[in-house]
Amino acid sequence: MIRAALKKVVVIGGGTGNFVVLKGLKRYPLDLSAIVSMADDGGSTGILRDELGVLPPGDVRQCLVALSNSSRMMRSLMNYRFENGGLGGHSFGNLLLSALEKVTGSFEKAVEEASKILYIKGKVIPVTTNQVRLKMVLNNRTILEGEREIYLSQEIDQGYKSLYLEPFPKVNPRVIEEIRNADLIIMGPGGLHTSIIPNLLVEGVCDAILNSDARKVFVVNLMNRKGQTTGYKTSHYLKELVQFLGCDPFDHILINSRKPPKQLIDFYSEEGDLVENDLEDERLIFADLLGRLAEGQKRDLLKRNLIRHDSKKLAQELINIVDHL
Amino acid sequence: MIRAALKKVVVIGGGTGNFVVLKGLKRYPLDLSAIVSMADDGGSTGILRDELGVLPPGDVRQCLVALSNSSRMMRSLMNYRFENGGLGGHSFGNLLLSALEKVTGSFEKAVEEASKILYIKGKVIPVTTNQVRLKMVLNNRTILEGEREIYLSQEIDQGYKSLYLEPFPKVNPRVIEEIRNADLIIMGPGGLHTSIIPNLLVEGVCDAILNSDARKVFVVNLMNRKGQTTGYKTSHYLKELVQFLGCDPFDHILINSRKPPKQLIDFYSEEGDLVENDLEDERLIFADLLGRLAEGQKRDLLKRNLIRHDSKKLAQELINIVDHL
Repeated sequence: MIRAALKKVVVIGGGTGNFVVLKGLKRYPLDLSAIVSMADDGGSTGILRDELGVLPPGDVRQCLVALSNSSRMMRSLMNYRFENGGLGGHSFGNLLLSALEKVTGSFEKAVEEASKILYIKGKVIPVTTNQVRLKMVLNNRTILEGEREIYLSQEIDQGYKSLYLEPFPKVNPRVIEEIRNADLIIMGPGGLHTSIIPNLLVEGVCDAILNSDARKVFVVNLMNRKGQTTGYKTSHYLKELVQFLGCDPFDHILINSRKPPKQLIDFYSEEGDLVENDLEDERLIFADLLGRLAEGQKRDLLKRNLIRHDSKKLAQELINIVDHL
Repeated sequence: MIRAALKKVVVIGGGTGNFVVLKGLKRYPLDLSAIVSMADDGGSTGILRDELGVLPPGDVRQCLVALSNSSRMMRSLMNYRFENGGLGGHSFGNLLLSALEKVTGSFEKAVEEASKILYIKGKVIPVTTNQVRLKMVLNNRTILEGEREIYLSQEIDQGYKSLYLEPFPKVNPRVIEEIRNADLIIMGPGGLHTSIIPNLLVEGVCDAILNSDARKVFVVNLMNRKGQTTGYKTSHYLKELVQFLGCDPFDHILINSRKPPKQLIDFYSEEGDLVENDLEDERLIFADLLGRLAEGQKRDLLKRNLIRHDSKKLAQELINIVDHL
């Protein structure tokens, strides 16, 4: 019996969008890699960068938890945030990665060790191991310094002149290799300027994507973020990505077809508006990708988490693509 | 073939003394338990108690590391101390135990989970799971509040009226069971007032020890701690333990026979003096238990670590006792 090699799926991003994709795909027999942006500098991650000089652990932690096959308790531990005193706000998983970086002397080794502790499926790979800051120059010449400041800005949708990493980072060579050998590359959902594009700003990543024989899928966000992508339609997301990539590499564009309840959209409106589709294109795949809320969750969650992809539905559509490779 | 049950060895203490005993005994086929004092309130542990309201993780961490069969890297991680900012001074292992306590809702479950993560041999059991403070009233009526203050005091050797835990704690029932079923109970080496006696101040522990059929060994310290046990000889240690225990339960008293080099004793003199033996007793066992220093270690170590037991030699003598049970 010949056993076929597992299909190699590479997810490019960072943050919550990545989490949903990885969590869903974890259940399938795939060779899975998560390439993670290293521009995060907010909250616990920002403090660790400033005080300890470590690389940003936050997005890597989220990917590790998404891919973890350890107990629910271990996953809760990784996301546990200390509440008081000098530790207040730090998530335990961030401290684990930072302490491992100090003990092993390298962020990549730290990720490797944490991967063992968490029994992760697949690999989590930082896009660069250089210390970088994300910067944005707005049309009105304001300079936004750092991912946090960009994430919180309410005027990016007025247009920006440039978005870049400083200093210009060397790519992690493993990233190029993963992209080159991929069967499927997935970008999105996630923060366009703060999670997806920061990966494309690293030397060689765009070329590697364009030159890879992999199928390329873009998963369109459900909601726009107010002041960042207000009023964006599918074409706007695509256009902005293509500006950085150099040309349009996507074979498939995956779009949610099920409109969230009006009540939720209204409730969410302070955070942002629904992404409408304005493309007609044979690459488009429409499917119900909408996450359901558990009872009681409506009160507990942040507004921006109320409308989100369902990891199982999303994974099923992605697997449909993999199965036809 | 009948397979004999492993001999049950219970080590009572906390801190560095315990570490040496457990690390040595770990290599032998034994059913090993460490009963750990819960009075620590110094440094990282004290901050965690104050800021998070957790039980003291420091001594438990040391025992877990001593018994761990995980990689050297994992053990280094547990002892790694953050250097800067709000995290400064915290050891990673302490944060692990405190976060686990918060996530699982119980310190004992936290110890159990950490035991799995660290692949420990045996069990580490907190003597109580009540929040307690160690207090001491000196002969001059000064009240010392907390283990840290007692540990740092330079006037305990002038005599004290009382040493107690506040509030008077309930014993962890597992401790009584372990002591009852023990084949060998080991006390010492370690801080008399800050590591050993605090276990005896918990409800029921002394009675359990006196009523246990186990052989009982006391391992005498190599050095006195200045201002705490200055000029103490074997009989003074024994006398003070017996005051708390109610009567003398020891079957064996293990004493180092190899004098440290004069140069080291002189160098150590600011920290304390050599413990001389003044007993003649058939229970005494003399053996070379002295740890050797690796080259270069003299400069690196704290003075109080310069003269210490050798974990292998000490374990060998304890195993000789076990083999004759």
